[in-house]
Order: sequence, then structure tokens, then C-alpha cells
Amino acid sequence: MSTRPVLGIGVVGFGWMGQAHSRSAARIASLFPERVFDTALVVCGDNVAERREQAVSGVGFREAVEDWRAVVDHPDVDVVYVTAPNMMHEEIAIAAAEAGKAVFCEKPVGGTPDQTVRIEAAARRAGVITGVGYNYRWAPLVQHAKALIESGRLGEITNYRGRFFSMYGADPMGLLSWRFLVDEAGYGVSSDILSHAVDLAHMLLGPITEVSGTRETFIRERPLPKAGGTHYDRGQPGDPTGEVTNEDYAAAMVRFANGARGTFESSRAIIGPESQMAFDVYGTKGALRWNLETMNEMQVFLVDDDGRAPRGYTTVYAGDRYPYHGHFVPGDANAIGYEDLKVIENYEFLTAVATGEQHRPGFSEAVDYVSFQSAWLRSCESGAWETVNSIRQD
Amino acid sequence: MSTRPVLGIGVVGFGWMGQAHSRSAARIASLFPERVFDTALVVCGDNVAERREQAVSGVGFREAVEDWRAVVDHPDVDVVYVTAPNMMHEEIAIAAAEAGKAVFCEKPVGGTPDQTVRIEAAARRAGVITGVGYNYRWAPLVQHAKALIESGRLGEITNYRGRFFSMYGADPMGLLSWRFLVDEAGYGVSSDILSHAVDLAHMLLGPITEVSGTRETFIRERPLPKAGGTHYDRGQPGDPTGEVTNEDYAAAMVRFANGARGTFESSRAIIGPESQMAFDVYGTKGALRWNLETMNEMQVFLVDDDGRAPRGYTTVYAGDRYPYHGHFVPGDANAIGYEDLKVIENYEFLTAVATGEQHRPGFSEAVDYVSFQSAWLRSCESGAWETVNSIRQD
Amino acid sequence: MSTRPVLGIGVVGFGWMGQAHSRSAARIASLFPERVFDTALVVCGDNVAERREQAVSGVGFREAVEDWRAVVDHPDVDVVYVTAPNMMHEEIAIAAAEAGKAVFCEKPVGGTPDQTVRIEAAARRAGVITGVGYNYRWAPLVQHAKALIESGRLGEITNYRGRFFSMYGADPMGLLSWRFLVDEAGYGVSSDILSHAVDLAHMLLGPITEVSGTRETFIRERPLPKAGGTHYDRGQPGDPTGEVTNEDYAAAMVRFANGARGTFESSRAIIGPESQMAFDVYGTKGALRWNLETMNEMQVFLVDDDGRAPRGYTTVYAGDRYPYHGHFVPGDANAIGYEDLKVIENYEFLTAVATGEQHRPGFSEAVDYVSFQSAWLRSCESGAWETVNSIRQD
Amino acid sequence: MSTRPVLGIGVVGFGWMGQAHSRSAARIASLFPERVFDTALVVCGDNVAERREQAVSGVGFREAVEDWRAVVDHPDVDVVYVTAPNMMHEEIAIAAAEAGKAVFCEKPVGGTPDQTVRIEAAARRAGVITGVGYNYRWAPLVQHAKALIESGRLGEITNYRGRFFSMYGADPMGLLSWRFLVDEAGYGVSSDILSHAVDLAHMLLGPITEVSGTRETFIRERPLPKAGGTHYDRGQPGDPTGEVTNEDYAAAMVRFANGARGTFESSRAIIGPESQMAFDVYGTKGALRWNLETMNEMQVFLVDDDGRAPRGYTTVYAGDRYPYHGHFVPGDANAIGYEDLKVIENYEFLTAVATGEQHRPGFSEAVDYVSFQSAWLRSCESGAWETVNSIRQD
Repeated sequence: MSTRPVLGIGVVGFGWMGQAHSRSAARIASLFPERVFDTALVVCGDNVAERREQAVSGVGFREAVEDWRAVVDHPDVDVVYVTAPNMMHEEIAIAAAEAGKAVFCEKPVGGTPDQTVRIEAAARRAGVITGVGYNYRWAPLVQHAKALIESGRLGEITNYRGRFFSMYGADPMGLLSWRFLVDEAGYGVSSDILSHAVDLAHMLLGPITEVSGTRETFIRERPLPKAGGTHYDRGQPGDPTGEVTNEDYAAAMVRFANGARGTFESSRAIIGPESQMAFDVYGTKGALRWNLETMNEMQVFLVDDDGRAPRGYTTVYAGDRYPYHGHFVPGDANAIGYEDLKVIENYEFLTAVATGEQHRPGFSEAVDYVSFQSAWLRSCESGAWETVNSIRQD
Repeated sequence: MSTRPVLGIGVVGFGWMGQAHSRSAARIASLFPERVFDTALVVCGDNVAERREQAVSGVGFREAVEDWRAVVDHPDVDVVYVTAPNMMHEEIAIAAAEAGKAVFCEKPVGGTPDQTVRIEAAARRAGVITGVGYNYRWAPLVQHAKALIESGRLGEITNYRGRFFSMYGADPMGLLSWRFLVDEAGYGVSSDILSHAVDLAHMLLGPITEVSGTRETFIRERPLPKAGGTHYDRGQPGDPTGEVTNEDYAAAMVRFANGARGTFESSRAIIGPESQMAFDVYGTKGALRWNLETMNEMQVFLVDDDGRAPRGYTTVYAGDRYPYHGHFVPGDANAIGYEDLKVIENYEFLTAVATGEQHRPGFSEAVDYVSFQSAWLRSCESGAWETVNSIRQD
Repeated sequence: MSTRPVLGIGVVGFGWMGQAHSRSAARIASLFPERVFDTALVVCGDNVAERREQAVSGVGFREAVEDWRAVVDHPDVDVVYVTAPNMMHEEIAIAAAEAGKAVFCEKPVGGTPDQTVRIEAAARRAGVITGVGYNYRWAPLVQHAKALIESGRLGEITNYRGRFFSMYGADPMGLLSWRFLVDEAGYGVSSDILSHAVDLAHMLLGPITEVSGTRETFIRERPLPKAGGTHYDRGQPGDPTGEVTNEDYAAAMVRFANGARGTFESSRAIIGPESQMAFDVYGTKGALRWNLETMNEMQVFLVDDDGRAPRGYTTVYAGDRYPYHGHFVPGDANAIGYEDLKVIENYEFLTAVATGEQHRPGFSEAVDYVSFQSAWLRSCESGAWETVNSIRQD
Repeated sequence: MSTRPVLGIGVVGFGWMGQAHSRSAARIASLFPERVFDTALVVCGDNVAERREQAVSGVGFREAVEDWRAVVDHPDVDVVYVTAPNMMHEEIAIAAAEAGKAVFCEKPVGGTPDQTVRIEAAARRAGVITGVGYNYRWAPLVQHAKALIESGRLGEITNYRGRFFSMYGADPMGLLSWRFLVDEAGYGVSSDILSHAVDLAHMLLGPITEVSGTRETFIRERPLPKAGGTHYDRGQPGDPTGEVTNEDYAAAMVRFANGARGTFESSRAIIGPESQMAFDVYGTKGALRWNLETMNEMQVFLVDDDGRAPRGYTTVYAGDRYPYHGHFVPGDANAIGYEDLKVIENYEFLTAVATGEQHRPGFSEAVDYVSFQSAWLRSCESGAWETVNSIRQD
């Protein structure tokens, strides 16, 4: 008979991310016997009827509702996942925090940097545990990278290369969906995907102090969407077009507080890389390379003190020697997948909720990112190096 | 309100495989909205108390019992998973089939080829749906490979290379566990891992008609186990040793019914490959290479009719363009994992149960493998080519 | 009986580069039957006796002398290779040009940007053919990349990533050789290796118009050299040290005249990359990746108009389908090497000399690089974007 | 003034191989200052006028003749390279040996195994130094592999995988050239390319004692050639065809004298591999993988005694740390090429000639291969394992 506390889960927005978190929360018990909590899928809010049906009959929620307030206010809900469109995050997340719920937001927390700052401040004032979906932190080999860096095996870190390249906006005939409009999506790749790349750098190397940035929109006009079209749908030559109002491409040079140098790049209008969320980190004693496209591998180069090992990068496969991996599959070189990362993320977040310790990455780490992003935006305007200052509200 | 039939699941043996199947059956509803059944985890049988506790409180079984017969006989159980030690499979699987349950056995179905044959015959006589855990068939890119071959994109298949190399028996100080003893495990790598490699070839190319085989035991003595030790535990120099009585290494040259040639190799006492379950297939118009260690990638070489494409192998990343993948994660180059393969396997098996159509791979495909294995064993003895004849019981 | 004109070769400085050019000039006749010239190794100048001995008895020079002026003034010399230390280039190269000889300088032509500018102006005034050792241009697959880009197969180029990472200064105990001193070597990686990376971008994409740059010296003190020590020799802890006075690391963000964006990075104090002179180029229809460490391979990703090809990067091996390759070895996937690139470079340069057409890359392209470098240096100081203006002397 | 003896070089057959050896002999002096000989290109024999012209004006032979006997009998010739068509080797090589010349034959020495045996016996009786063109032995990383194996770093060798796959016969419309006819070429891939793969195994692991073999001809009819056509030229559908009379494909399972097991495979009618001459070698402490297609790389997996290194294959790039490499280019990860391997081969062969010590691989190693091939052919007929006995003539 389990005596673990049961955390009631409420989800607002049952698109991909809402479903992924719900499915993941349900898997924790079977994969983490050592957990200190159990979960109950209490209520799911979405305004699409089929999604509500799937939430109950497929994923196992007790109930599903149209109005998000019924989720936030539900007495059995301890934790609210905010996985609605970005521009709705502020209202929902703040309401959830003020209702005393732990809150998990998909990145970028707020639809704009300012919204993120306000959400973080509200949650901090409410004293609730928060989480943000920088889920790539949880890949076992990324955790291993962090451990190698912290242990000093790489020596002093000299330079870092972070990038996130995705093809989702590469087709010039792809429709002008909400993602390409600053009023609906906020900034472009700097909010959408560069944030993941910078968050990993924050985790691995610590704060960035200065940045020089630039941005570009490669595809400046796109066919206007018809009813229901997304950026995966294509227009025809001759269709009426509209202007893309946020950036396709972002680049930056940075200095880290620890003295390391770095560069970042991100594009959504690129051909070739399909989901290249990747880092290269170099230190005085070694180097690491990791790429989400091959997330169960890492390239490791370590100076060998005694000179016995041949020199070169070693391809390390994920396996149960690395953090979390053995919960999913024993042995070596058997893959885990994207959904499994979501389980780890939720296991750690809900453990924090159950134990009352603040989770990382939480809203504070989201503010770290938008603080960087704000300096980067200033630099894009000024053409000069800008200091990264926290824009957290006191 | 779902009107899908509910399939009651019973599991015998709650080690890794028993747990993996149970967890996977529980995930189907949230990942496959189009399913024609629902599942209920009815009863789990295992003689270890902690496992029974985890089955109920972790994985969600209604109950857990010590005696496997209570699983097989349970009136609410429609499907029995036989994931107990191999030498127990025959008794359990036949009892389950005779009780009219659908039966899923982890490979190699029987502890010996003869047992496999008897199990298959009993299930056939009982008229029940069967399944066998050749789970690598279900990798989206393996399914894509099958489609490419069947569509003729590779032309006539000329030659095939299958292998399964694993390091689990590579350490000469690893203890003499049951895996190394013919009386406890049956044959060595030919039952344990070569079977996967040959099963994939059966799926991709069809039947093998002739084989020339050889085998070897590289590490002929191992330290005797103390209480509880497995082959992952190490002895000390000077410890008493015993004889390894099944093979570390298997090799074969074959002819397929379609005229193609092939070679197979398997070793458990190898350094380097960690879980190299891999195939290379060559045809008159193209080639494919796939390796479980990088299961979300495939190397594809296709002759380009118009000569416009550069020549070379293309590294294709798994993504939602390929079978099943999009049920787990949308887009390109996001990984799925081992546990996800188990979900696909169970989705397909349970769909067969729900619809009453025989599943493949079922016990019949397991007999296909032991028919091959029997010819291979004869060839290892005779040194000559042997014809592969089905050893299925009439 | 050959009626080709014979070009008399003089070499000043018989270190690695002097030897490599001499050996390469001697190989042209046997590899390029279609050549329009023959070569004669007339005279080699070096102040080291063993090198002079090797020049005559090993490489086949008619004579070897101590004084470089005897090379420049030799009546049978038509072409002078300036492969002496960088700070001597100006005097020698200008003397050679003024003597009416064709002149080939190893990069960076001058020891400083100003010297490069003066050398180029002098050669231009003298009206002689010039060449510079940006030899990576000549790799068959780099030539193929250029052809693919020019043909439009990549569409509009959107962004470019160039880098040159080398481990030669990675060891903090490596001695403070001339390479680390601005007075002896001029600038650090920006002159030594970044120049190659930017030159390739110039060749592939055309001029850079704006740059934002930064630099760093990671290892600021090094053990003082003893007699004869180079940066490959190591000091001991406690040895007296001196200050490194040029940069270990350079980074840049750029805009190209064609609208593309780009980043560059270079380090000599890096662990992992051994000779990673590499580019990634992305366009609206495809992408290419090439790395000197694997110079006989290129990664090619092309959008397939008809959608028949699997999507991913194709690994293309060099072979006789690509420029020059078949002169060295027929067929596919047989490697050529570094020395072979030098043969191609000299074949093209000497063809230009024989036909009287200006060679590219010549001193003009070297000025293109130092024009970029000058803007980059200004940006490193100002922290702002700087316009790249030609610093060529009128 | 050099006091080295001058070895007079004569070449019979000035196709690719004749040219490659001549060019390579001419490069030795400039690349190997430590050599104990010099070379003179004395006379080249070929019946094609343009080739004779290129031999003199391009490569630098003193003279070129039509009749091969004028090469063999030339008083200034010390060394004869036999690079004429295979079926002419016997007459030429025996004449050269009987004239007291050192003899280098391109593989497979004789046009048939019997011819190879007779040539070896004649050369042995004549007491001359011999060489055979198993040039892949000389790749620096292959030499390093040999050193690692001999040093025991891989432990006891357990199994080996050798292969040579080439696309040259993959096109069913490729003409029926001499290569496909047993009367003109001798055996197919077993003579042409499998020999390289087995020779490397002989060098790395030592003798093979037993073999089980099989062969196949995948493309049994080909268009008849018109005047001058080779297998690179294509016929048209409807053209008259003829029968292919030697094998496209060869496979073998073997036992080595040292107890290791192995498999070999070779095909000329394969799509995908372009020049995949490759080996994987596995021992109780490590593994190596090498492939000619990427000859400047090797994959190395070594068990780390102290467990400090991450586990996986390390990609080692060739560089001046490995045998011979630094003669061509200093530093790390700069490539050498096919022509450079020929220089190493000739440097070693001519050193043997100059010092009077027998060279390896010489005709004796060629007999080792045909001894294996003869057993393999017997096994292809018998379907049984056959013992490999030396077929050397006493």
C-alpha cells in the first residue's frame, strides 16, 4: 500500500506538449520505483472537443473541461501545466500561481520577455514551485557532460559553440502562420529555439556577461494562410502574401562569467539540419560534442595524462552507466527517446513539488534566458556589445 | 464513453521484459487514439515480493500473485505474456494457450528448439493468437527498409549481412551464470541474439534455404558464481572455475530462396560493439545499412535514375515521415527509444488479438528461426552445407 | 620531343613549404600530360647546409645557395617561391617582382597586413604573375562545392560557418616560440589560420562587407624557449615565462555582399579538433559541409524536386568524377593527400605563368584577406560592426 | 655528393600501375632523405606510342621501347616492374628473374594460381628480391594496427572481418570486358580484390588454416563489347550478350592458426560501397576498424585498465605520429593519398633491393594468397571445410 502523497495534475492546453506532459506524468510510477510521490491526472482544459475526449479516454484524466479556469481552480489540482499558446501563458500561469499551485510552463514561459518577467515575479511572490520545459537538459549524456565539466575533466573551459537549426521555416511557400508574426508569437527563433541552446550553455558553463548579436529574416514574404493552415502547409505561386515580422536567424558572440568565449547561431529557415540542437564545448583538457539529432551519442575528447590512449574523439553511446538511462532500458547502446526525456523532466519537477525544493530549470532560469535575449536584442539594434543584466523584477 | 473491447492482460515473470510489456500495454491508449481495443492490467505473477509490489503500486496491475497458474487461469485475462525464464516457457505458454488465451512469449519462445516447436504446435491446435518478442522489427526505419525493399527501390537483392554483437560475455572474469550453460540457457548466442539478426533477415528478404555454419567458445572457463551472481559480476583470479557449455560465437553463410547470398555473425564475447544488432542489404539498385546502436538513423544508397543526385550513402534520421514514429514525437530527427518499440510491438500484437487476425511475428516465425538454427547446428557438426527445412510439427 | 616552354624555378627558404612546392613542381610533368609548360629546378636558397644538400641531392635542384639574392637574380629563374619566415617576405618578394619574376608567396604574404599591401602593390606595378598558398581551395571536393554553389543547386545562400581549429598552441607548457609574439609573427590565429577559413568563404560566396569581431588569448604566459625550442617543445613547471602577445582565438560575425550571413571562429589553443579547417554553407535549396580533417569527403544535402530521394546528408567520397582527382588516382573513394593539393596549386599557378594570365588566388586575394582582417581588428577594438574596405594601395 | 648506389628502374606495361610505380620511384629521393639508394628511370616498355612518349617526356625515363625484352635485358636495369596484363606476367617475370633483376609484380602476380606458383619458384631459384603490390599494407594506420596487435594491446584476437566491395561490375549493362572472362582474367573477385583483403589478414593475424567458401555470379550475361570497350562502357538493351565466366561474389568463413575466427566477403557487383577494402579486428582487450574509403582514419576501441576513459570507439586521424606519415606532411589530421602509399611501397621494396634483404610482401606472400584461394576454390566445389596447404613448389 503506497503511502506516497498523490500530486493532482491539471493541464491547460492539450496540444503536443500538453499531451506529452500528461503521458509522461502517468509513466513515472512504473519507471521510478524510488519516487516520493504518486500522480493523479485530475483535469485537462482545452477548447477542442476531440482533445478533451482523448484526454479522458486515451490518457486517463478524470475529467476534461473547456474553461482553463476550472483547471486552475480545481481543489484536487496541485500542479498546473501551462501548455496553451504562448500569448495566453501570462494570464493562466499567474492565476495558477496565485491559486497556490505549482506551475510548469512550456518555454518561453511568457509570450514576450516582459511577460516572462511578470510571470516569474508573480510565482515568486506566490511562493510556488515552478518548472520550465528546457527538456534537453535531461538527456542522460547532457547530464553526463555537465558532470564531466563540473569535475574538471575538461580543464578550464575556453570556448563554446551552441546552435539550434531547424527546417520548419525553410520552405518559402510555407504559409505565414502565427509563428512568423511578432504580434502573435513574439520574437522569432530567439524565443522559439535559440532559447534552448542558450539554456544548455547556462546549465553547462554558467552565466553569460556580454553579448554581440545580429539577426536576419531570410524569407520576408510568405503566402497568406487560408483557414486552418499552418507553416507546414504550402501556398501557391501567385497567392497573396504578407510580411514576416520576426527573425528567421539569430547569431551571437558572447563572454561567459567564467572567462570562456562563445558563439551561438539559430535558424528556422535552413536546409540540412533537421533538429540540430547542438553544442561543442572546449576546455584546456578536453572537448565534448552533442547533437539532439543523435541524442544517444556524445563525442568525447579527453587529454590522456599518461599518453596511453590513441588520440581522437570517442563516440560514447548512452546506456545505463549514465544518469536516468537505466530506468528505461538496461545495458549499453539501447536508445531512449524524446518522450522519455519528458518523463525525466516531470520526475524531477514533481519530486521538487513533493519535497518543496525549488526546481531547476524553473521560471528563474527562464528569466535568465530573457535577460540574455534582451541584451541580445539591444545589441542587434546598437551594433555594439551589450552587458547582460538580469531583468528580474525585484 | 469508449466502446472498445477491453483486453485483460496477465503477465508471468516480472523481470525487465515483463515490466517492459506491462508499461507498454499501459501506454497504448495515450499514444494510439485510433486503437480498436483498450487494455486492463489484470494480474501479474512473480515469486519475488518486491516485483509484485511494483506491479501493483508502480505499474498498476489490479493484483499480483506468486503462482503463474493463477495468471493463466484468471477469467479476466485475455492475453498472457510469458516473460519467465526460458526453460519455464513451455509449461506456461502451453497452459495459457490451452486456456484459450492469446499468448506472447519473449524469444526464443522455447528454451530449446524442440520446446519452441511444441509450444507453436500447442498454440496452433488451440487456435490462439500468438506473438514473439522480435521487437527490432518495429523500429520505424526497419519498417521503412522493408517498404523500400518490397517496393523494388533496391532492385534485386544480391547479398545481405546480418550481425548481433554484444559485450555482455566479453569479460573473462565474468561469472559462469546460467547464460553460459547449455542445460540452463539452451544454446548460446545462436538462441540468445543471433535469432534477432536472422529474424530481421526473414522479414526483409524471406526464407533462407541453405546454410553453412560454424561456432566457437572463446572463453572456455569462467569463475563459478557465488550466491546471486550474474554474468555482470566478476570473479577473482584464483577462484574456482567451471566450463562454459554453449557457444560465444556463431557464423554462417546462407542462400536465400530469392537467390540472394548472405552472411551472419554473432558474438557475446566481443569488445567494441555494445549492442550492434545490424544489417547491410545490397541490391542491384541500392543499399541500406541499419544498426540498433543508432536506431534512429539509416544509411541509404539509391541509384539515381537521372544522375542528378551526388553519389554516396545518405544518413536518414527517423521522423514522423516513417511508420509509427509520429505517434511518439512529431517532426524530424527527434529520437524514439527502446521502450517505444515495445509499445509498437504491443499495439500491433493486441490489435491482432482484438481483430482475431494472426500476428506476425508469432510462434510460427519463432519456428522459422529454430528451423534455421537446427540446420545451422547440423552444419556446425557436419562441416557441410545443410538445407533449411521447417521443423514445424504437423 | 617536348616543345613546351621550361619555367625555371627558384625557391627561397627550404623549410616544409619550400620543400613541398619544389617536390610538387617536379611532379607536374608526370601527372598532367596536358600541361603547357615544363619545369626546371634551378636554384634553392637557404642558410642551413643540410637543407641545401637535400635540395640538390634529394629534390634535384641544379644548385643551392646561401644568399636569397642569388635566387632572385638568377637569369634562369622565371618563378620565385618565397617560403622564408614571414617577416622576410616583403624584401624578397618585392625584389623578385622587381626583377621581373613571377612570385609565389606562402600566406600571409606579408608579415603584417601593411607588408602584404606593399608587396601586392609592388608586384602589380611590376606586372608579374603572383600566387599565394591558400592551398585548400584546390581540394577536389572544395572545387566541386564551388561549382554546386555557382550552378545554383544550393539556391540563394543564407548563411555560412567557417572555422579553423588547430591544437598546435593547446599545451600551456608549450614554449613561447616566435608564433606567440606579435613582433615576430605578426598577429596570431587571425594571420596564421583564420585567413584560410576566410579565403575559402571569399572563393565560395564572394566579398564580406561588414564584420563584428572579437579575440582572446587563453594562455597568457608560456615558458621561455631555450636554444632551438619551438612551440612543440615543452617547458617545465617553474621555468621562467614570458607574455604571449598575439591572439589564441578569433571570432567574427559577418555580412556578405550577396546578403548571406556568416560566422567565423579560429583557435590554436583548442583540444579536440586537430586540423579542423571546415565550412558549412546553407542555401534555400541545400547545404554542404566539408572539413580538411576528412578532405576526401563532403556532406551534401540537396532538396529533391520530385521528392523521391530520402532526406538527409549524403556522404560523398572524392573520386575521379571531381576536378583534378583523376590525375592522381582513378575510380571512386581512393584518397588524394596534402602533397597532391600542392601539385594542383602549382599546376594552376605555373599554367598562369606560362600563359600570362593572372592567377587566383594571387596577391590581390591576399589583400582581400588583410582588408577583412583590418576591419576585424578595428571591430575588436571598437566593439562595433565595421565596414570591410579594400586597403589595396592605389 | 651522393654516394648512394643508383638502382636502375625498368617498367613493363605503362598503364595506371606502371605509371604509378614510376612516378613513385621518382619521388623517393625528395621524401626520404634517409634512403640508402638513389633511383634512375632507365627504360619503359609499352606497345602504345603515347604511353612511351609520356614515359620519357612526362615521367623522365631515359628511353621507352616497344618490346618488353629490351627492358628485361637492359644492362642498366636492376629492378623490373611487371605491370603488364596479368596473363603476360609469367613470361616477363620469369625472364626478369632469370636475368638476375629484382622483380616487382602487381598482384595477383600470376594470371592463375598456378602461374603465381611458377613465378615464385623461378624467382626463388634465381635468388632475386621480389615484391608484390599489396599496397594497402602501407597505409600508416594499417601499420599502426599491426603494431597495436603485435604489442598485445588488443589481447588475444578472437575474430576478424575482412571485405573488399567495389562497384566496378555493378552495372548490368556494363560490357563483357576481359575482367569477366575466366580465360582472360583468371578468377573474378577472388583474384582481383579479395586477395587484398586476405593479404591484410595474413599480415595482421598470420596464416589461415581452414576455410569454408562460396561464390556467386549475380550478373550472368552482359552486352558484348564493341572495339575498345571496357566494363566502364555500357551496352544498350537488345545488344547481343555473352556469358560471364568468373565470380562476382565470394564469401568465406575461416580459422586462423592463432585460434581466431574470421569471415571474408567480396563483390564487384555491389551498389553502395565504392572502394570498401576494410577490416574489423576484435580481441579480448580491444577492437580496430579500418576502411580504405577513409584511409586516413581508424576506429580504435581499447579496454581501459583504470576505467578512466569513456567507453566507445575513438576516431583516430592519421598524422605524423604514425609510421611514414610525417614524410609527406607534418602534424595531425592532414591526409596522405593513394599515390603516397605507392611511394612507401617502393621505398620499402627498393630498400630491400639495395640491402639484399627479402622484401615482404614478396612473391612468397603472393603464394600464401593463392594457397588460400586454392583451398577456397576446393571448398566452393565440395561445400565442405578445406585445409589451407601451401601450394608453393619445392
